[in-house]
Amino acid sequence: MAATTPNHTVTVSGWAAHDSSGKISPYTFKRRKNGVNDVTIKILYCGICHTDLHYAKNEWGITMYPVVPGHEIVGVVTEAGSDVKGFKEGDRVGIGCMAASCLDCEHCETGQENYCEKMEFVYNGIFWDGSITYGGYSQLIVADHRFVVHVPESLPMDAAAPLLCAGITVFSPLKDHDLVATGGKKIGVVGLGGLGHLAVKFGKAFGHHVTVISTSPSKEEEAKQRLGADDFIISTNPEQLAKAKRSLDFILDTVSAEHPLLSILELLKVKGTLFLVGAPDKPLQLPSFPLIMGKRSVKGGIIGGIKETQEMLDVCAKYNITSDIELITADRINEAIERVAKNDVRYRFVIDIAAASKE
Amino acid sequence: MAATTPNHTVTVSGWAAHDSSGKISPYTFKRRKNGVNDVTIKILYCGICHTDLHYAKNEWGITMYPVVPGHEIVGVVTEAGSDVKGFKEGDRVGIGCMAASCLDCEHCETGQENYCEKMEFVYNGIFWDGSITYGGYSQLIVADHRFVVHVPESLPMDAAAPLLCAGITVFSPLKDHDLVATGGKKIGVVGLGGLGHLAVKFGKAFGHHVTVISTSPSKEEEAKQRLGADDFIISTNPEQLAKAKRSLDFILDTVSAEHPLLSILELLKVKGTLFLVGAPDKPLQLPSFPLIMGKRSVKGGIIGGIKETQEMLDVCAKYNITSDIELITADRINEAIERVAKNDVRYRFVIDIAAASKE
Repeated sequence: MAATTPNHTVTVSGWAAHDSSGKISPYTFKRRKNGVNDVTIKILYCGICHTDLHYAKNEWGITMYPVVPGHEIVGVVTEAGSDVKGFKEGDRVGIGCMAASCLDCEHCETGQENYCEKMEFVYNGIFWDGSITYGGYSQLIVADHRFVVHVPESLPMDAAAPLLCAGITVFSPLKDHDLVATGGKKIGVVGLGGLGHLAVKFGKAFGHHVTVISTSPSKEEEAKQRLGADDFIISTNPEQLAKAKRSLDFILDTVSAEHPLLSILELLKVKGTLFLVGAPDKPLQLPSFPLIMGKRSVKGGIIGGIKETQEMLDVCAKYNITSDIELITADRINEAIERVAKNDVRYRFVIDIAAASKE
Repeated sequence: MAATTPNHTVTVSGWAAHDSSGKISPYTFKRRKNGVNDVTIKILYCGICHTDLHYAKNEWGITMYPVVPGHEIVGVVTEAGSDVKGFKEGDRVGIGCMAASCLDCEHCETGQENYCEKMEFVYNGIFWDGSITYGGYSQLIVADHRFVVHVPESLPMDAAAPLLCAGITVFSPLKDHDLVATGGKKIGVVGLGGLGHLAVKFGKAFGHHVTVISTSPSKEEEAKQRLGADDFIISTNPEQLAKAKRSLDFILDTVSAEHPLLSILELLKVKGTLFLVGAPDKPLQLPSFPLIMGKRSVKGGIIGGIKETQEMLDVCAKYNITSDIELITADRINEAIERVAKNDVRYRFVIDIAAASKE
């Protein structure tokens, strides 16, 4: 299948899963030599996304082992190729889920590389040179500069890392529905995890009334007092659901597990939109009546384009939005992954890659 | 529950189902005396919609017997109340699914009475006076003029009847997605029945490339040669589906039975919309991946507002669009209903109500 090409001469220390046990262990591998369009980046921090678990354990059946996970990557440029524009040595930068796309289809040309049919992921993808991509659980990465963004100076690098996936994943739907530039809408956020807590922060920053919808009554205090949510609905409480029927303009559903849509759809006003960013393995049950009787929509989307990701980071700097994180050293990745599997994290683990490089 | 109020003094001959056998038999009942805002209409024709079967047989568990079905009603005004505007004796008019709404909510005020929370159906509904509404399987109806539309002179009354439900049901989503004013898109129509055949006619009239998606290979010739469809995909043929992936801008799904959405969603381009107007009893299986990976939408809607229904009829006159019908006399309603249950009709039964009144 994919090959390590002769230009792969840079030795990199990282961490990989080698089989479906998903156990992560140190792994030394080669990256390509910095090309004319590439930047080489010393990685400082990398977030742990739930997707990393799916790949580490081959839960989607598409993992190419060894897999070096990690697509919430921040670091500092150490080298820039001759054709690179906009990046120089010393720049604070980020890389998200994408390593490559075709660069000339209608999606690439309109800043939606994330919907290019030839988009390749930053790990477990196939780069243009035929090599398998390795992600951010590593001390160095070589990336085409067209898939790199700047991390604004005001944002702490560790807490900014999760913005590269979790952040853009919730920002893009809000932008698409005119919820960034204008406030005053009633929006719902289903699930208060890595994605959900950022959605609440964005929603409040943009001036919306934000309702968190969760199965966990224990999260109400946190949602309201810490994150500033205006309202909280327990998704298994019929009275609360009934009271809030037809009250929300837009709901962002961040839940990756199977869950019922009927009561969530009924919370939407006429013409309201339920936007799915979680990806349950099995199909969801879609009742057609709440769609039909309320002219409602169910939409989906994956991350965002590069330009949009830069915009998101700039907006985060403006409103001082970062992820709530638990910073860990690389020797605790397996422990962290186990806790992510149980949703036992507030709200994102971030690996202190730089700490490992000092050992 | 609902009461026949003292103002119900007009004796009307019609046809009703009296129990869950769904068998339709002659039924004489009272309608209200024409009020100041009412028009009295001598019914000429009434279409048979699949919904009529659901109510006749109490398949949704909400039927109030005896039920007089029929919501694709055309006829001639015989009396107009003193406050009625826009209608006079002798006018050719139509009535669709709605008998009443609140008239002053945001939906009513913007011509979307169909999404008013107090909207009442033209049969098996509760009118403002507390009486149960009776539909178009009858020789005369009294209707508030705000729920009546004009049938353009150029349209034959019998073939126009189904436009009042089937027509507006497929027209409204097309209008909502800017597919009426501008052509040149690639649209799909799932299911070639009463709704689907009208959707094909609209799509072609508006200048789109129309693909019919059906389980029945036998419908290909009809779809293309008679209705003018450009393409035909058998929804169980993996090669045809694969070939057409990411090719359609918009798909109108008219199927009321359970059916798989995955392969249909994959026919849509990035950002494409699947619009459901059929209402399967059970939830559909919604795979989240084609939504997320293609930023696609699944929407739903029910009929259209009154202003929009008038616009639809005017557009039909402009393009000479009517339903393909099988005209029957009232004594054949039960036979027709059995055939509708088996989808054995091209494409709509219409009852010749006037013929019965001559007997």
